[in-house]
Amino acid sequence: MNSSLVQYCQEKQSIIDQALEKYFPDKNVYPPILFESMRYSLLAGGKRLRPIMLMSAADAVGGEGIRYIPVACAIEMIHTYSLIHDDLPAMDNDDYRRGKLTNHKIYGDGMAILAGDGLLTAAFEAMLQQENVAADVLLSVVREIATAAGAWGMVGGQAVDLISEGKNIDANTLKFMHKAKTGALFKAALRSGAILAGGSQQQIQALTQYAEWFGLAFQITDDILDVVGSQETTGKPIGSDIRNQKVTYVSLYSLEGAKKMAGTAVENAVASLVGFGSKAEFLRHLVQYLLTREA
Amino acid sequence: MNSSLVQYCQEKQSIIDQALEKYFPDKNVYPPILFESMRYSLLAGGKRLRPIMLMSAADAVGGEGIRYIPVACAIEMIHTYSLIHDDLPAMDNDDYRRGKLTNHKIYGDGMAILAGDGLLTAAFEAMLQQENVAADVLLSVVREIATAAGAWGMVGGQAVDLISEGKNIDANTLKFMHKAKTGALFKAALRSGAILAGGSQQQIQALTQYAEWFGLAFQITDDILDVVGSQETTGKPIGSDIRNQKVTYVSLYSLEGAKKMAGTAVENAVASLVGFGSKAEFLRHLVQYLLTREA
Repeated sequence: MNSSLVQYCQEKQSIIDQALEKYFPDKNVYPPILFESMRYSLLAGGKRLRPIMLMSAADAVGGEGIRYIPVACAIEMIHTYSLIHDDLPAMDNDDYRRGKLTNHKIYGDGMAILAGDGLLTAAFEAMLQQENVAADVLLSVVREIATAAGAWGMVGGQAVDLISEGKNIDANTLKFMHKAKTGALFKAALRSGAILAGGSQQQIQALTQYAEWFGLAFQITDDILDVVGSQETTGKPIGSDIRNQKVTYVSLYSLEGAKKMAGTAVENAVASLVGFGSKAEFLRHLVQYLLTREA
Repeated sequence: MNSSLVQYCQEKQSIIDQALEKYFPDKNVYPPILFESMRYSLLAGGKRLRPIMLMSAADAVGGEGIRYIPVACAIEMIHTYSLIHDDLPAMDNDDYRRGKLTNHKIYGDGMAILAGDGLLTAAFEAMLQQENVAADVLLSVVREIATAAGAWGMVGGQAVDLISEGKNIDANTLKFMHKAKTGALFKAALRSGAILAGGSQQQIQALTQYAEWFGLAFQITDDILDVVGSQETTGKPIGSDIRNQKVTYVSLYSLEGAKKMAGTAVENAVASLVGFGSKAEFLRHLVQYLLTREA
C-alpha cells in the first residue's frame, strides 16, 4: 500500500478505535470484569477492516463514510464477538489472537461467552443509534446485517466449520463455509455503507460483486498465510490448519493453485469497481493488497 | 388460574408456537444440525410468558396484542438463547431444562453456543420485520429490547451470577443480579407491548412498575420452588441452589420471609394496574398466580 492509502486507513482506524472505546467505558460499569473482558478483545488492535470498508463504500457512492460510525462500529463488535466465541475450547480452541492470549484464556470460558453475547447485543444497540439516515433505511440496513450475522450467514458458516473439523469436505462445502462465515459480513459492511449513503441500485450491486470477490480473495490468502506466514506478523501460531486437519484452499488446490485463484479473485474485484472512478481508489488498492498481506 | 384465563394463555401460546416454528423451518436449511439444535430448545414447550406479557400489555393499553407477534417471538428467542448459554458447563452446568436434556447435552457445547448466537441474532431479524408500526417507534422498541438483553441488562446479570457462585453475596447484589438477569427482559416485554400499541406515558409508566414487582415476585417464587417444588412439575432437579451454594431469597430471608416478600410484591404489582380496569385482568391474575406456581 502506498503512503496515502496507509494514511487513509490509519485515520479511519483511529476514528473507529475512539468510537469503540466510548461504547464500552471502563468506569462506572457493573460488573467491571464483564466490561473489561469485552474491552480486552474489542480494543485489542484489530485492523478495523470491516468498518473501514463500510465507510469506504459510503465514500465510493458519493457519500461521507464518517457519518456512519455507529453502524461501522456495530459491525466491528459483531466481528469481535465471533472471534471470541470461535476461539473457545468448544470451538477452535485457540490460545492466541492478534498476538495476545484469547479472551477465555484470561477471563475463563463462561465470561468469554458472556463477553461475546454482550458485544453482539451491543452491536444492535449501536446500530439503532445511527443518526443522519431515515428510519426505514436504517431498519433495512440493520435487517441486512442481522441476516448476514446469523444462522443464515456467519453463525451458519461457523456451524459448518465446527462439524467439518477432521472431515474431508469438498470444494463446494468449503466455499459455502467461507462465504457464510467470513464473506457475509464483508458483504453486509459494503452494502450497508452504500445503502446508508444513498447509493443507486447499480452501485450497490457493483459493491456486492466486489464484496464477494474480496471475501474469496481474503479467505484464500488467509489459508496461504497459515502456511507461509510468520507468527510474528500474524499474531497467531502458523500451521494450525494442518494440525487441526482442516481442508483449506491450499490443501485442495496446492499453494500455487491457491495463489492463482487469489489473483483471479482480486482481478474480478477490481473489475467490479470500474464505474466508480477515483472514488473507489481505496477499495481497489485494499483488495490488491491482499496478495501481499502478511497479517 | 380460572379456566377463562387458562384459555387466554393457551390461545396465545399456540399462536406464538406456530409463529416460532415458521422462523426456523426444519427443511431446506443448512447446516441442518444447527437449525435442529435451535428448534430443540425454542420449541421445547416453554410457557411463552414473555411474549404473552407483551401481547397483554398491548391489550391493556387498548391495542391488539396479536398485531405484534414478530416482536413477541423475538423476546422468546432472546429468552431461549439465554437459557442455552446459561446451561453450558462453563456457566451453570445444568443437564435438564423443562424436563428434557439441555441443548449442549444433545448437540455438544460448540453447537449449543452457536444455537444461542443464532437465536439472539434471529431475534433482531424478527423484530425488524414487525409491521403495523411506524419505523421510528419500532426503532425505539428494538433499542429498548437490546439494552435490556445486553451487558447493561440480562448479560450483565448473568455475569454477576457467574462471579457470585459459591460467594456470600449481600441482598443488594442479589437484587441487582435478578433485576438485570430476569427482570430487565420482563420489563422490556411489557413496555414494548405498550409502546407498540401506542400507550400513553402514564400507561407505560404503570406497566413498568408492574413489571418490576412482577420480576421480583417471579424470582422469589422461583427460589422458593427450588426448595419446595418437585422435579416432576418444574422439569429440573430440585435443590440445585443449595448444591451450588447459591445465595437466594430463601437463604437470605428464610422460607417464611421469602413467602411474605413475594406476597407484598404481588400486591404492589396488582396495585400498579389500578388504572387499566378490566383490560388488565390477565396481567392481574398472572402475577397472583405466581404465589401458587408449581413450575
